[in-house]
Amino acid sequence: MAIIVQKYGGSSLATMERIKNVAGRVVQAKEEGNSVVVVVSALGDTTDELIKKAYEITPDPPEREMDMLLATGEQMSTALLAMAVQALGHEAISFTGLQVGIVTDTVHTKAKIVDVKSQRIHEEIKKGKIVIVAGFQGVTVDQDITTLGRGGSDLTAVALAAKLKADLCEIYTDVDGVYTTDPRLVQEARKLPVVSYDEMLEMAATGAKVMQSRSVEYGKNFGVIIHVRSSLSEEPGTLIKEADQMMEKAIISGITYDVGEAKITILGVPDKPGIAARVFKALADANINVDMILQNVSEKGSTDISFTVNKEDLKRAESVVDKVVKELEAKGFSCDEGIAKISLIGAGMRTHPGVAADMFGTLAENSINIEMISTSAIKISCVIRSECVKEAVGALHKKFELEKDKVREVKGED
Amino acid sequence: MAIIVQKYGGSSLATMERIKNVAGRVVQAKEEGNSVVVVVSALGDTTDELIKKAYEITPDPPEREMDMLLATGEQMSTALLAMAVQALGHEAISFTGLQVGIVTDTVHTKAKIVDVKSQRIHEEIKKGKIVIVAGFQGVTVDQDITTLGRGGSDLTAVALAAKLKADLCEIYTDVDGVYTTDPRLVQEARKLPVVSYDEMLEMAATGAKVMQSRSVEYGKNFGVIIHVRSSLSEEPGTLIKEADQMMEKAIISGITYDVGEAKITILGVPDKPGIAARVFKALADANINVDMILQNVSEKGSTDISFTVNKEDLKRAESVVDKVVKELEAKGFSCDEGIAKISLIGAGMRTHPGVAADMFGTLAENSINIEMISTSAIKISCVIRSECVKEAVGALHKKFELEKDKVREVKGED
Repeated sequence: MAIIVQKYGGSSLATMERIKNVAGRVVQAKEEGNSVVVVVSALGDTTDELIKKAYEITPDPPEREMDMLLATGEQMSTALLAMAVQALGHEAISFTGLQVGIVTDTVHTKAKIVDVKSQRIHEEIKKGKIVIVAGFQGVTVDQDITTLGRGGSDLTAVALAAKLKADLCEIYTDVDGVYTTDPRLVQEARKLPVVSYDEMLEMAATGAKVMQSRSVEYGKNFGVIIHVRSSLSEEPGTLIKEADQMMEKAIISGITYDVGEAKITILGVPDKPGIAARVFKALADANINVDMILQNVSEKGSTDISFTVNKEDLKRAESVVDKVVKELEAKGFSCDEGIAKISLIGAGMRTHPGVAADMFGTLAENSINIEMISTSAIKISCVIRSECVKEAVGALHKKFELEKDKVREVKGED
Repeated sequence: MAIIVQKYGGSSLATMERIKNVAGRVVQAKEEGNSVVVVVSALGDTTDELIKKAYEITPDPPEREMDMLLATGEQMSTALLAMAVQALGHEAISFTGLQVGIVTDTVHTKAKIVDVKSQRIHEEIKKGKIVIVAGFQGVTVDQDITTLGRGGSDLTAVALAAKLKADLCEIYTDVDGVYTTDPRLVQEARKLPVVSYDEMLEMAATGAKVMQSRSVEYGKNFGVIIHVRSSLSEEPGTLIKEADQMMEKAIISGITYDVGEAKITILGVPDKPGIAARVFKALADANINVDMILQNVSEKGSTDISFTVNKEDLKRAESVVDKVVKELEAKGFSCDEGIAKISLIGAGMRTHPGVAADMFGTLAENSINIEMISTSAIKISCVIRSECVKEAVGALHKKFELEKDKVREVKGED
């Protein structure tokens, strides 16, 4: 009997009606002959409401207690969904992260999973029960409740799927799969039937909101096949799995964009060894993530260093850079919030060296200036003006013919 | 260092402001040099809201899942109160019933406590922390979450106080103590500084709403001194403890009333042995609690049996009685919802035999008819018409001079 792990997000559980709808889906999977384990998020906006309450109590809520508070949200969901499933005549049983044994480290509000127990789940599915587990939460070895941070419920689902050696991990969300690019931006965007872990990781890192990198990473490490799909539709979504022969035929899988970053340029930095290290160590010490880095060619013994940071971190980054500029006796620095990063992602890039040239050429044809470039084995990112995003993504989508299902078209070639 | 257990009810925690107020009280007890363990109910109407959600899902929510759902309410309270205490500069730590180890049987929604662990609490209070525990909930040996039913949070507090050998168990509620009678009914009602376990048990059983019998019973069995008081006032409330020399001086401690019962009379029952047993076994089998029972004198080989049940159970009781009447070939039965039970309670009754006569005489003087009588060593109950309650309670309150502090007055006599 196949084991399927299904995860439902908060919007799929926002009302009692939707919970009943989810119960119907769960029961369907069971009646198709599978053992079903369900992971749930908190109902609708519950988490936000709980956070609001905490901040009404104190501007600085202690993290252990925050986790204790937030964990109630998913627990509520498990109980209500278990009721809804039982109302449909199937046996169901709910568990908290603690009860299942999602063991984490002690870093409250962003704990890492260190072990997943599965004995109780195995016992219950052996009895034919549908098992419903609270996502997003875990427990330390001292029995303190932790939460896993952003994308935590997805992670619970993938980690359970890995531990249970599930045949499939279905992530039900409010989008119906992974697209070649944002369908709100490009009408021709096409849902990808399948995407590799590495491509999905690059997409997540460059602006795709479908899944957080950590869950995909976990899935990759344990070979969990993930199916991202919508809880409101019967249509298949997108499979995330190991790249296979067929997948490699597609040169480009998708185009992502991110307008959430800002560019900082330090001007007139003395061109000496160790300078870059000092700049970025200072930022790392302040816990600021730096994404792209560009060091311009040296000119008369001084150089400019540009890099991008999350806009949320910009204020803090500025104050760090201000100090560094003085220490290094640089000329000064500038900030630019009007940028966007667009990225081409595709496992096929590895064997098709012309992709970068095609990308730059397409942007040039559309008179879009490239300010920064960054590449990896399966990704090329360019920083452009944010007002050019729509035009740039549309042009690239057309250039690489992403509206067509290239996987099938090139089948049997080379 | 004294150990104090404090319990705060839902109305004391209904808003974030009130939670902060409770935190202030908790901190005060700590700063007075005590080790403080706090037990909390769910915020305001949270439990009712959760129950409503469950019934939106299904008319028949499974009890295990109901417990899973309801337990989130108290967990929320623990986290928010721990935050509020820490905001006042004291260390605090929250625990669920499961984490502390309030071990119960497996009877979901009305579980009985079978064991209370205290190791973790002792560890934390040794570190100087204020420990905050979710009331109303426990855990089975299989790690399933249970709830303790009505008055469950009080019970958690008393059970923890017993286990921790606490010096005092303070129950903060929305009334400021135990009164000689309901102050809304009799203006002269006086707050009792102290009442014995047995008196409190009789009061609870006969209509006083302050505390449930089971918590008082638990307190009695383990000698936990309970202080019932208001969270909105600094005034002392009422101590519930073992009767001592001084307490016995007061003949009557209080007058209670209960308009929540109905009377059923089975008419023309053949007067043979075993009849009463058959009637009350049938009711017991249907899980209907019978309170007072009165069998009239036999007349020409048949008799009438009257008894009272909770109005909530009346419908079910009627259908049971209907069957029994046919089986026994009795003449029929009647129901009366217009009754009230008034009760005089006092440990001093044991040694003052004239109390019953005084009670009946007072009611007669006021032309109040007595329909049923029931007595225990420290209680006399009469069933009267419900519209006479106010007059009857007022007259008895005056007759027994409950507005005066008899304890002090008679001190040093006999």
